[in-house]
Amino acid sequence: MYHSNMLNAEKTRELIEEFKITVEKEIIDLKDGNSRILAQEIIVMVDVPPFNRSAMDGYAIIADDVSTTSESNPKYLEIVDEVGAGSISNHHLKLGEAIQIATGAQMPSGADAIIMEEDIESYNGKIKVESPVSYNNDVALIGEDLKKGEIILSEGQILGPHHLSVIASAGYKEITVFKKPDIGVIITGNELVEPSINIKPGMIINSNKYALYGVIEDSKAVSYVKQCPDNKEELMNHVIEAVKKYDAVITTGGTAISKGDLIVGIVEELGEVRVHGVSMKPGKPFGFGIVDKTPVFMLSGYPVAVAVQYDMFVRNFILKLQNIHKKMDMITVIAGENVRSSPDKYNVIRANFKEDEGIVYPIRTKAGINKSVLMSNCYIIAEEGVGMIKKGEKCNILKYSSLKVC
Amino acid sequence: MYHSNMLNAEKTRELIEEFKITVEKEIIDLKDGNSRILAQEIIVMVDVPPFNRSAMDGYAIIADDVSTTSESNPKYLEIVDEVGAGSISNHHLKLGEAIQIATGAQMPSGADAIIMEEDIESYNGKIKVESPVSYNNDVALIGEDLKKGEIILSEGQILGPHHLSVIASAGYKEITVFKKPDIGVIITGNELVEPSINIKPGMIINSNKYALYGVIEDSKAVSYVKQCPDNKEELMNHVIEAVKKYDAVITTGGTAISKGDLIVGIVEELGEVRVHGVSMKPGKPFGFGIVDKTPVFMLSGYPVAVAVQYDMFVRNFILKLQNIHKKMDMITVIAGENVRSSPDKYNVIRANFKEDEGIVYPIRTKAGINKSVLMSNCYIIAEEGVGMIKKGEKCNILKYSSLKVC
Repeated sequence: MYHSNMLNAEKTRELIEEFKITVEKEIIDLKDGNSRILAQEIIVMVDVPPFNRSAMDGYAIIADDVSTTSESNPKYLEIVDEVGAGSISNHHLKLGEAIQIATGAQMPSGADAIIMEEDIESYNGKIKVESPVSYNNDVALIGEDLKKGEIILSEGQILGPHHLSVIASAGYKEITVFKKPDIGVIITGNELVEPSINIKPGMIINSNKYALYGVIEDSKAVSYVKQCPDNKEELMNHVIEAVKKYDAVITTGGTAISKGDLIVGIVEELGEVRVHGVSMKPGKPFGFGIVDKTPVFMLSGYPVAVAVQYDMFVRNFILKLQNIHKKMDMITVIAGENVRSSPDKYNVIRANFKEDEGIVYPIRTKAGINKSVLMSNCYIIAEEGVGMIKKGEKCNILKYSSLKVC
Repeated sequence: MYHSNMLNAEKTRELIEEFKITVEKEIIDLKDGNSRILAQEIIVMVDVPPFNRSAMDGYAIIADDVSTTSESNPKYLEIVDEVGAGSISNHHLKLGEAIQIATGAQMPSGADAIIMEEDIESYNGKIKVESPVSYNNDVALIGEDLKKGEIILSEGQILGPHHLSVIASAGYKEITVFKKPDIGVIITGNELVEPSINIKPGMIINSNKYALYGVIEDSKAVSYVKQCPDNKEELMNHVIEAVKKYDAVITTGGTAISKGDLIVGIVEELGEVRVHGVSMKPGKPFGFGIVDKTPVFMLSGYPVAVAVQYDMFVRNFILKLQNIHKKMDMITVIAGENVRSSPDKYNVIRANFKEDEGIVYPIRTKAGINKSVLMSNCYIIAEEGVGMIKKGEKCNILKYSSLKVC
């Protein structure tokens, strides 16, 4: 019976946050790093560029050589070599000479400026220069992009494509990232069957499984889903196995009364139940416990409650296992209609926020209507003590788009 | 020489958009559907719930049976059966009787209301009812969540976890989605080597490869990356193979002059070059062609140019291959500093937009500094004719976060 010691949402979060997390790391190939979380500093190991190089297709010259040129006083330089990207010229450039050079190619020794191909004429093995150029004109200097020893990224950075590119340039082919947490999911319920058009009397399609595949993936973790009948021994074996193998375990179903609080009883027997019952609507029969040092989140069987419980208590925990510390990013907007909420509960109400109006409209469906998730884009969060929110009054919302870490 | 017929960015986009795309579909297991693009309608195949069911743990009764009850006039009903979720009771309920029922269990025949367990007392095989309940009290009615025949999702929907859950409930174990496009990437450049701290003279680390792995993944597509030296025959063979195997091909390098416009020449020889050179900064030497009915995007060798060319011309094309039609979601904000831009070009300038101030600050780095991607969160887009934007003036930005489809 969880009614005796029902906690509020804040206390529930506190108890979950008290759990001491061990984050794990792994080394991966840089090419697999997109959207992973960096678990090391990136200290530049090589200067980028690694040498002075031409930033243009053109000719490497000595700037002093053409300092007095003009249209009426041109200078002719002899083309003594050519160098493409990836090659080097062995010729040491002297006054009166030019080396044809491609973008990206290393500057020949002796040269200190580039003249763009488009800016000059060449014939008979010579180029005609009609205006001066400054030192290092169109030269990309050694280390100007990345300097050896410079720290460019820190632990905790969520990596995107261009981080990968810069990390490659810094000399890394492998990186250390936080391991994707492995999340064991145990779905309980004798009534649950796979999606089909032929459902036996009394049976229900197991939709939680599919929602959980998705939300766990969106939490950058990996899910391992098992289904289990409402049978104490079998369920207990599943829990024992799951807490051994996975970084966290999520169960659905069996948290309410008539199934004998099956899962809660098992967690109590094997370990410790820290939360059972939260004064929240929907999602009251939420449980949190620890078995064999592994956190076990006990969610309801109802899809609507599962979604809310995951978003309120599980998602940020799973992110934290990867060293992503995320808060509930609530914003305050105006209610477009009266919002019914119970002052003695933490109310999580599906709603539509119209960005351009700055107004939120609660959706009106019966409790338990799973489809409501698709008809809404945010939660209105009405904490204990708030009660009815009148049309035109301020209220706090949590946009679904703010939950996800991209 | 691409300078003769350089196109503007708008015309370039038009020519790319003219390419007739064939979107392909595939059938996948619903569990793999998160973040995929739906390529079918979802018509509900089974009512949800599939039968009237109890929304609470309690007792199924006949509402009329207790219509006159009160504390001073209670009624006792005999508990004749019990039914759990996934089971059905074979007892047809008559007046004077109650059946104990679990949340989610099918309503016994004859019953038309539920009394919550918490609201009554039971002893000696009977329950004591002290107040009336209405018809269908705490009963979830057949089809109240999803009605058979109802269309709940349409082609083109990007699927999230809760779409999967609702699709499962609608009776689908497999769904038709748009195929993830296969993108062949050919990286050219004799100077390119893998990340390492020991780089031979003249060589450069291949960072484009890593950026492209990432941006293609973020475009919900699959990349197949090959590296190729600046050798006409080898490159030609790579192109011939890639256009056969993949839905689109991206090349980097070899679009500028001194490498003899290698890739552009090859595409011209094998098919047709529609764009070569765009009056854009950075990213001028962009090419677009068609070989064997397959689009070939020819990007620069410079990482900064590659990033801009991808974002301006490639990303939305790859999304369109999956039936995602995305526009450049520019917003107008205030410039926090003077923004230098050429009035004869389409200028793409890395910048930082401060959301809370509504002000954008261009970042000041030399061109070609790849690290600048990490120091910025948006592009300022200054189209042809705009020229210098003064501090305090309006300018258009494109946030990096708006490019990605989550």
